[in-house]
Amino acid sequence: MRQRNKPWADDFISTHAELIIPDPASHKGSWKDVFGNDRPIHLEIGTGKGQFIAGMAKQHPDINFIGMELAKSVIVNAAQKVLDSEVTNAKLLNQNAADLRDFFANDEISGIYLNFSDPWPKNRHEKRRLTYKTFLEQYQDILDAGGSVVQKTDNRGLFEYSLVSFSHFGMRLEDVSLDLHAAEEPDNVKTEYEEKFSAKGQPIYRCKAVFQS
Amino acid sequence: MRQRNKPWADDFISTHAELIIPDPASHKGSWKDVFGNDRPIHLEIGTGKGQFIAGMAKQHPDINFIGMELAKSVIVNAAQKVLDSEVTNAKLLNQNAADLRDFFANDEISGIYLNFSDPWPKNRHEKRRLTYKTFLEQYQDILDAGGSVVQKTDNRGLFEYSLVSFSHFGMRLEDVSLDLHAAEEPDNVKTEYEEKFSAKGQPIYRCKAVFQS
Repeated sequence: MRQRNKPWADDFISTHAELIIPDPASHKGSWKDVFGNDRPIHLEIGTGKGQFIAGMAKQHPDINFIGMELAKSVIVNAAQKVLDSEVTNAKLLNQNAADLRDFFANDEISGIYLNFSDPWPKNRHEKRRLTYKTFLEQYQDILDAGGSVVQKTDNRGLFEYSLVSFSHFGMRLEDVSLDLHAAEEPDNVKTEYEEKFSAKGQPIYRCKAVFQS
Repeated sequence: MRQRNKPWADDFISTHAELIIPDPASHKGSWKDVFGNDRPIHLEIGTGKGQFIAGMAKQHPDINFIGMELAKSVIVNAAQKVLDSEVTNAKLLNQNAADLRDFFANDEISGIYLNFSDPWPKNRHEKRRLTYKTFLEQYQDILDAGGSVVQKTDNRGLFEYSLVSFSHFGMRLEDVSLDLHAAEEPDNVKTEYEEKFSAKGQPIYRCKAVFQS
């Protein structure tokens, strides 16, 4: 994602510590306390400008959402969207997904969203794709029984790769859509990217995969 | 497939018994004898006009091919294509796929092709789709260890269904293409349908799935 330089982003982040949680490792195993309730926690990796997480938090008040986004200049947009939507069930982390187990305990998460992740199309970058097996291992650890991974992307190569990677890892495909917007999906919360790509007539792919116990 | 009435089809079929094999149940467990060698046998269910099986037989002389096609008026086209291609490693069956175990013994087949099968889009017709679990059970029985099911289709709904059905059956996806003709696939043998649909710019989906031992 192209990022404008925003010199005020550091200030914004530090003055919104109730929303963009500093030192997330300190909350490992106790995210329920951060939210102040026992509701299931869903995690979006690569939150971008926040339309998805703000929309999901509004649509699902019974679920707590955590959005991770490394780019400071982008996470401030996400923070503003969450503030504007006046939800209390969404938190943000200015972190990348190097090892999610640094931040989350086993079974602490009930759902993971991978939205329009970087496809890393070159073979030598396979390990960076968020559906590479080392990431799936992390998801398996932090997800509770029945927890799912939901991927949306417009990138055909990434989606083909993910289906095979999920399958080889022993995950079960629960749902596959090869043109998400062709069917009526009234509950689908769109990301900014999704709106843009879909408007061009490109198909949006989505699948839901679960680990087998 | 629209079929013209061909009153001479019965005659053609009975006079080409070396190619369109009558009474296939009598060869159950001994198809190697029909071909006169020990090469692996691949099965296409719904051979249509035969471009795929004739092309595959030519491209893979080390493999024996059996094509099943119920429609008499269509299988005669397939027979003519096989005759024209002058291959000896392709046979046809004027049968439907009601229960493949009537015709083939356990582990007798090494590969199954489902090309542009009827999508049966209505929910109440799910059981007729060739990737419904009762068909997968048959494939599992007649396929040898490592035998694969390769599906090609232009029908998005059928392909979405198949991916989930394979996965729920415990099959592993080895390869998925969501736009077969976008990539260079020099070895891909096209069916008549495939040529027609692809020329319209519609994506052709393909996947290869294997049973896990």
